[in-house]
Amino acid sequence: MTTSSKPKVLRIGKVDFAQKKWDELSQIAEVVQCESKNREEFFQDLKTKYSDITSITRTFPSISETGRFDEELASHLPKSVKTLSHCGAGYDQIDVQPFSDRGIQVSNVTAPVEAPTADTAMFLVLAASRNFLQGRDPTVKGEWPAKGKSAGAPLGHDPEGKTVGILGMGGIGRAIRDRLKPFGYERMIYHNRSRLSKELEKDTEYVTLDELISESDIICISIPLNPKTTGLINKSTIEKMKDGVVIVNTARGAIINEADITQALKDGKIGAFGSDVFTKEPEVAQELLSLPNVVALPHMGTHTYEAIFNMESWVVANVESYFKTGEVKTIVPEQWSLDLKGEPLV
Amino acid sequence: MTTSSKPKVLRIGKVDFAQKKWDELSQIAEVVQCESKNREEFFQDLKTKYSDITSITRTFPSISETGRFDEELASHLPKSVKTLSHCGAGYDQIDVQPFSDRGIQVSNVTAPVEAPTADTAMFLVLAASRNFLQGRDPTVKGEWPAKGKSAGAPLGHDPEGKTVGILGMGGIGRAIRDRLKPFGYERMIYHNRSRLSKELEKDTEYVTLDELISESDIICISIPLNPKTTGLINKSTIEKMKDGVVIVNTARGAIINEADITQALKDGKIGAFGSDVFTKEPEVAQELLSLPNVVALPHMGTHTYEAIFNMESWVVANVESYFKTGEVKTIVPEQWSLDLKGEPLV
Repeated sequence: MTTSSKPKVLRIGKVDFAQKKWDELSQIAEVVQCESKNREEFFQDLKTKYSDITSITRTFPSISETGRFDEELASHLPKSVKTLSHCGAGYDQIDVQPFSDRGIQVSNVTAPVEAPTADTAMFLVLAASRNFLQGRDPTVKGEWPAKGKSAGAPLGHDPEGKTVGILGMGGIGRAIRDRLKPFGYERMIYHNRSRLSKELEKDTEYVTLDELISESDIICISIPLNPKTTGLINKSTIEKMKDGVVIVNTARGAIINEADITQALKDGKIGAFGSDVFTKEPEVAQELLSLPNVVALPHMGTHTYEAIFNMESWVVANVESYFKTGEVKTIVPEQWSLDLKGEPLV
Repeated sequence: MTTSSKPKVLRIGKVDFAQKKWDELSQIAEVVQCESKNREEFFQDLKTKYSDITSITRTFPSISETGRFDEELASHLPKSVKTLSHCGAGYDQIDVQPFSDRGIQVSNVTAPVEAPTADTAMFLVLAASRNFLQGRDPTVKGEWPAKGKSAGAPLGHDPEGKTVGILGMGGIGRAIRDRLKPFGYERMIYHNRSRLSKELEKDTEYVTLDELISESDIICISIPLNPKTTGLINKSTIEKMKDGVVIVNTARGAIINEADITQALKDGKIGAFGSDVFTKEPEVAQELLSLPNVVALPHMGTHTYEAIFNMESWVVANVESYFKTGEVKTIVPEQWSLDLKGEPLV
């Protein structure tokens, strides 16, 4: 164990682009890179190498090193831990309650994720509504013009006269809404746990979940994954949808029952499905991937230089904020009503 | 030859969705479907079956039946022809001058083409900037996670801090501009034959062609094809561009020298190329199609139910307008300064 007057940060997962931000943080904190190979070793190291850490930062892929941040993992943390900062918007790899119980502030990344994820949703809305890949794929194979006009792609649909529904109007949902607006949909509706203020809602119409499900020609999903939203889109909700509905998911795969949506895509009940996320990703059922009316991306919502740099910087800012003020910058909603504020350390 | 008091319309090419509009037109006009198999037969039929037609309508694919509408074809038209209506925005299959010389009004389709073509441009901007298909293709083949994070797709770029340039600010260019706006580009610039009014220009900045070429991170092409624009994007203009520039073309293939852009894509000078149009389409060089940083669509800009219905209806409206007022609805710009107005026929 080293002795240092600086607070210690345990960094789990690698840094791609914001090394400079971490270097700056090193002036006020000691940064310890997690080198534990698996959960067992991680628990062991928490008793020794990491026994006096104040803050933990983690990335989405680092789940392969530590496993989920759940009650079991929380119970192994040294008492010194005060903050846990996730490098992403969706923090479903973390069960917040056990950390709240121990007075540990949990933060996620908010603003930097919104634009690139909404851009991904727009790509999927366009690709799925217009059947672009059903024209592009045969063209690349040299099958145009043999397959006919537009290489045999079925005709797509325009926003004209259509209703687009946004399920989840947090930062990402609102960014999707702003991008959809100039495309000229006849009606824009949304559902959210609670109705937004007029200022945030703008000219999008608040509806119940049932109305959103049954009245939308296109549904964009941007809600967090939690026990209430797991499997929310299933056989029974799909039956209430319009025939030929287009569904786009940039949130989490498990919000949709994949067996049910696969069947509905095969039946033609669902017109097209664009998704950046899958229940057991990176494993995805080939049956779903192979359907012509599916546009599948391998979790590319924030797969840009700018997004990764901004997310990594945001994580550092959360840690730094705790050290300087006793509070992380973007604490997760589950902890908004709790008083977890600590004392500044630097 | 039939005798009829109604003016005659020769319809070249098929009607997909607006048959009802044509049925309505039949109440004031006699609609003759062109059945000539080739140019020679067409010229022959113009002397006999079609010798008293007032209006001609034509589609983009019907060029395979008649060939180009050029001086030679114009010279074979009966003197009775007063209007020629093209079912599309780009009328480069028509040499306007020979028809102007004969007092024939030429019309194209304007408004209905703008939104679906701009939507196509947005798909290409997103696909090309974000390398989405380089993640999607291996995923569909079952190669995720074997190929790594996001199935090995190279990281994309966000609009943040970027300059987007729109080359051609007609209806389509302005529709692209409106859709790009909420994505948050740092700077939006355009070049057009003539600067737009403040009202049409909005907050897009007018620049010279050279400035647009050299300052844009993304270039969207939406200019008509004519002798001045043929090969406008070539080795010499590409050399002036930023390294890694993204080019999107929803206008006409021949605006770009395809050999030159293929080389620049291979060299890495151009970061990505999204195109809905090709010089000799539907024939496209496999070398270009096979590049990983190319997103190629088989001319799908208006490949939707709504767009085709609206375009077909617009053509009927042009013919009807001539019959009722002596003027087609949307005469092409080359004829704006000419007085070709006729007498109402119905």
